[in-house]
Amino acid sequence: MARKVNLNSDMGEGFGAYDIGNDTALLDIINSANVACGFHAGDPNVMDRVCKQAKAKGVSIGAHPGFNDLWGFGRRAIPMPAGDVERMVIYQIGALQGMAAANGTSVTHVKIHGALSNMAAVDLDLAMAIARGIKAVDPTLIFLVPIASELLTAARKAGLPHAAEVFADRTYADDGNLTPRSKPNAMVHDPAEAVARVLRMVEDQEVVSTSGKRIPCRVDSICVHGDGPTAVEVATAVRDGLRSGGVSTVPLPDIDLS
Amino acid sequence: MARKVNLNSDMGEGFGAYDIGNDTALLDIINSANVACGFHAGDPNVMDRVCKQAKAKGVSIGAHPGFNDLWGFGRRAIPMPAGDVERMVIYQIGALQGMAAANGTSVTHVKIHGALSNMAAVDLDLAMAIARGIKAVDPTLIFLVPIASELLTAARKAGLPHAAEVFADRTYADDGNLTPRSKPNAMVHDPAEAVARVLRMVEDQEVVSTSGKRIPCRVDSICVHGDGPTAVEVATAVRDGLRSGGVSTVPLPDIDLS
Amino acid sequence: MARKVNLNSDMGEGFGAYDIGNDTALLDIINSANVACGFHAGDPNVMDRVCKQAKAKGVSIGAHPGFNDLWGFGRRAIPMPAGDVERMVIYQIGALQGMAAANGTSVTHVKIHGALSNMAAVDLDLAMAIARGIKAVDPTLIFLVPIASELLTAARKAGLPHAAEVFADRTYADDGNLTPRSKPNAMVHDPAEAVARVLRMVEDQEVVSTSGKRIPCRVDSICVHGDGPTAVEVATAVRDGLRSGGVSTVPLPDIDLS
Amino acid sequence: MARKVNLNSDMGEGFGAYDIGNDTALLDIINSANVACGFHAGDPNVMDRVCKQAKAKGVSIGAHPGFNDLWGFGRRAIPMPAGDVERMVIYQIGALQGMAAANGTSVTHVKIHGALSNMAAVDLDLAMAIARGIKAVDPTLIFLVPIASELLTAARKAGLPHAAEVFADRTYADDGNLTPRSKPNAMVHDPAEAVARVLRMVEDQEVVSTSGKRIPCRVDSICVHGDGPTAVEVATAVRDGLRSGGVSTVPLPDIDLS
Repeated sequence: MARKVNLNSDMGEGFGAYDIGNDTALLDIINSANVACGFHAGDPNVMDRVCKQAKAKGVSIGAHPGFNDLWGFGRRAIPMPAGDVERMVIYQIGALQGMAAANGTSVTHVKIHGALSNMAAVDLDLAMAIARGIKAVDPTLIFLVPIASELLTAARKAGLPHAAEVFADRTYADDGNLTPRSKPNAMVHDPAEAVARVLRMVEDQEVVSTSGKRIPCRVDSICVHGDGPTAVEVATAVRDGLRSGGVSTVPLPDIDLS
Repeated sequence: MARKVNLNSDMGEGFGAYDIGNDTALLDIINSANVACGFHAGDPNVMDRVCKQAKAKGVSIGAHPGFNDLWGFGRRAIPMPAGDVERMVIYQIGALQGMAAANGTSVTHVKIHGALSNMAAVDLDLAMAIARGIKAVDPTLIFLVPIASELLTAARKAGLPHAAEVFADRTYADDGNLTPRSKPNAMVHDPAEAVARVLRMVEDQEVVSTSGKRIPCRVDSICVHGDGPTAVEVATAVRDGLRSGGVSTVPLPDIDLS
Repeated sequence: MARKVNLNSDMGEGFGAYDIGNDTALLDIINSANVACGFHAGDPNVMDRVCKQAKAKGVSIGAHPGFNDLWGFGRRAIPMPAGDVERMVIYQIGALQGMAAANGTSVTHVKIHGALSNMAAVDLDLAMAIARGIKAVDPTLIFLVPIASELLTAARKAGLPHAAEVFADRTYADDGNLTPRSKPNAMVHDPAEAVARVLRMVEDQEVVSTSGKRIPCRVDSICVHGDGPTAVEVATAVRDGLRSGGVSTVPLPDIDLS
Repeated sequence: MARKVNLNSDMGEGFGAYDIGNDTALLDIINSANVACGFHAGDPNVMDRVCKQAKAKGVSIGAHPGFNDLWGFGRRAIPMPAGDVERMVIYQIGALQGMAAANGTSVTHVKIHGALSNMAAVDLDLAMAIARGIKAVDPTLIFLVPIASELLTAARKAGLPHAAEVFADRTYADDGNLTPRSKPNAMVHDPAEAVARVLRMVEDQEVVSTSGKRIPCRVDSICVHGDGPTAVEVATAVRDGLRSGGVSTVPLPDIDLS
């Protein structure tokens, strides 16, 4: 039986006159777009453009809510009451749903951005608030979460359909968390190595830490990046490597999440 | 046959630590709430609170989109391309739809705020962009528009269900536009006079200008305000005066808009 | 010899259509105003108004920099690199200096707002970054800091003129920090009690904790608040009580900080 | 006698994670930097970086105030009361003065950005409000204004030192205004042509319109741009062309403005 996996990427992170990343090129490679919703980045024009392009290219659309912190690009860990986070997530999903509906398409998943994701990955209360927000808006939304995180726990507890993602260009610690970027071995820069790692993770449904520890986990989706000089090259290599290895890449709704 | 009319008011115009207006008192009087969506005012917490209260009190919920201008409270006429306005309206409606859905209710109308409304009232291209945005999100949304405005024209042209509103506390010029606030006779401060005017407008389905000109028009809804020292008093008097005059006040979806 | 002490209060925390606090009344009571600089609150119009009123009433003007977080009113602890904080403080002081200069007056002190103050009170690196920012703009600015805090340590280390403040309406723990608001005995609501406490703190130059521990410290300034139902009453009682007790209240530059 | 002219460029128009333009390259070419002050673009970190680089390279520093409209990059014509504009300009100049002071340097000129400049160029009341704001902060600031504009008139009336600028890459109408970008002949793309035009403008102290009309005017400064694919090339050509033509390029304070 042929394996399937999803390729996702963060998108639409420009704002007004500012642009960032390489959405157009990436949309030809990935299957699911996580679209910034105007809080950490993105504006109605950017969101509309990504929705249009994603629809035209058969890429499924997800909300990518973050902190209301354009200056910090959602990368600063703002402590907020869980209820505020829940409502902030609802607002952002709704805004993108409106834009998707206006384009004759729909939002099918949610992935949390930056510092909010990092905080909730290790804080079940916060993760549950996010899961409640998603479920309240639409209980059929797929919650795209990091492996081995409280976000995954929250998705399960909330009964939300969910997909677990790994990173093509990052390494893992023994507890399943990403090696911090401050460590020298945090990043995988070589496209060939990234491809080999990703193939193994998908085939074995496990992640191997930098110390060699094997961490069994569901691997439903692979996150690739649009920024950085080699981003598109790495993403292309990962997509092609998966196909050559007999793994097809599909939008999140086509992944078997049962 | 008993007449019906709608009472609407702008709501949820606080932001963070800031509060404005008297939402709680007004929600006991009106039938339809126009909820700020986070651009000229409002935040996810405020929007959630108004949705919860409106639902509990049988008040229908509408989006109240405005310019992205918190400093100016949406009262500054920012020139934007029509397409940008269309997308800005879509975003805000979607955000409130998300919040309403999370509260087990829904958005049933849209009314434009402040300077954007004033601009579109006399600019059909802008009004059409707004109507397109509303229709693209949900063609069953009721577009609440000022009488004798290009917003009304746009609602008709777009085929959107629409309701025409008059103001209980403002007077009208011969062309059906509001007398500018800079004029001495722009405002109606006396509750008894406001009641008499409103009753006549509803019964005759016409507005009488300050010069005495009779302007026939559909009068589906009456806007009352929540700010100002006598706002709640005037709103209560209008509601009670209508009831005493045999006019029942109902949410917008219960108005016959055919 | 007659004692002197300073009364300070946070001011200018409105934004656009939003107003908060009771600046006009407080400016008749206090000697030094801490003016919000447009990041957590305040805008050029509000800043200008406070500068004009303060100048007219002989109240000295201080910058009150906070996080760039209008939604959170500067009360959320946003983790930022120390250098970013330093530059954020410089920017805000400069903006108020411009407004003061345009009004023919000047900024003579700096007091940090909300969450940034709370964080720096226990983090010497952050406190030093703030002190560096102040000193870089103008080394004669008086740094108004909480007693027994790392902000006080930083002011000393940086060689900045500084004044130590106590709160008229708050109690203290044994370490000189404020009793958290979550504790039942955190607040002093009775004006008479506030007056008695303040008089003792000024006369003895010490603070007595809720457990009875005596904490010797310089007490140069007393912070009173403008919000809350009894704020102006408490502030007036404190000012009058000090005067009756033979303590004169003066602007910060008239305090002997040597 | 050797001619002198100034080369200026807009700078520091990034924000947080967003970058725009090519400040570092341009700072090696120009003599005076117009630094965005955090309203239409720029943040304390960006402003600090430009101040440091400008100081190191002998480039004089000017404030570049614009509308508080990050989404619109200051390019949308927001109607505001003249007093609000005056205070908004004061705030931004002050903020940059703080940053310059913290870097041991100072702000020596002001140039208005985008839509605010365009509006004030044809509205003397608005231009006078801006001039008042500048003068109130520091009457020695050089006001850098477009030729043949109400901003120039306002600078004269206010008694501010002022410099008149032309654009190296734009053409002019008979009234001395720029040819609108919507017209086909609005831009000068050829570096050689830009150089020839600029040399003639400086030598003759006049501008020649697209119809051939000669418009005598003081030409103190030439604006070059940092964005666009050929921006640095054009700027370099203009600088080198001026030097080859015997015109030295100097910071604004070294221009004879009497």
